[in-house]
Amino acid sequence: MDVPADSYDCDAVSEVLGRVGDKWTVLVVVVLRNRPHRFNDLKRQVHGISQQMLTRTLRALEMDALVSRTVHPSNPPQVEYALTELGYSLSEAVRPVADWAVAHIKSLHDSRSRVAKSEAPPLR
Amino acid sequence: MDVPADSYDCDAVSEVLGRVGDKWTVLVVVVLRNRPHRFNDLKRQVHGISQQMLTRTLRALEMDALVSRTVHPSNPPQVEYALTELGYSLSEAVRPVADWAVAHIKSLHDSRSRVAKSEAPPLR
Repeated sequence: MDVPADSYDCDAVSEVLGRVGDKWTVLVVVVLRNRPHRFNDLKRQVHGISQQMLTRTLRALEMDALVSRTVHPSNPPQVEYALTELGYSLSEAVRPVADWAVAHIKSLHDSRSRVAKSEAPPLR
Repeated sequence: MDVPADSYDCDAVSEVLGRVGDKWTVLVVVVLRNRPHRFNDLKRQVHGISQQMLTRTLRALEMDALVSRTVHPSNPPQVEYALTELGYSLSEAVRPVADWAVAHIKSLHDSRSRVAKSEAPPLR
């Protein structure tokens, strides 16, 4: 393979991004970064996520030991989701991406409108 | 809305991640960070990407003005893809995620095998 020595392990990056790189996972991790949340609390914070998608996202994060699930013995029992230490390190890594998104969304919108207004680029 | 003042603009993060958060986009951006690449060169570096997916990924990055496409008037013409300034800033933001992926892929594998070996967690 002609991969330079300083390049990334593309296969590792690809596998990990395939598991934790979808937008719902990133949003859940970013929201949990502030404090532990209960399911409905989390659902409110992550705008637009469905109950099913949140369940699936949390389940995958638990399987990867990125999120812990604690059942408090109250009546009714309260279930709380929190980042593990590994999950917290992931949240540190994705924070610049979330910051970038907030800072540059307008640039992206502007680029898209410019493209929409101009003629289509040549086929390659 | 009960969003705390210090929380992220989830809608912006969600929209931007929906556009640039998929693994192929991140891998292309990470690879282009080193230097401009020609199409086939890029295809070799991003393991497992199909020609169609690379074409689609580059087209989307061009529409968002994150990647520029330069045709050099050689014979045959050479087409080169490079990060724009905005694309470079995105590559800076995603670098910690790629680093995290390489550093922690073993932890994720270990977690999955532990889960596979233990009994299934209770349904919620």
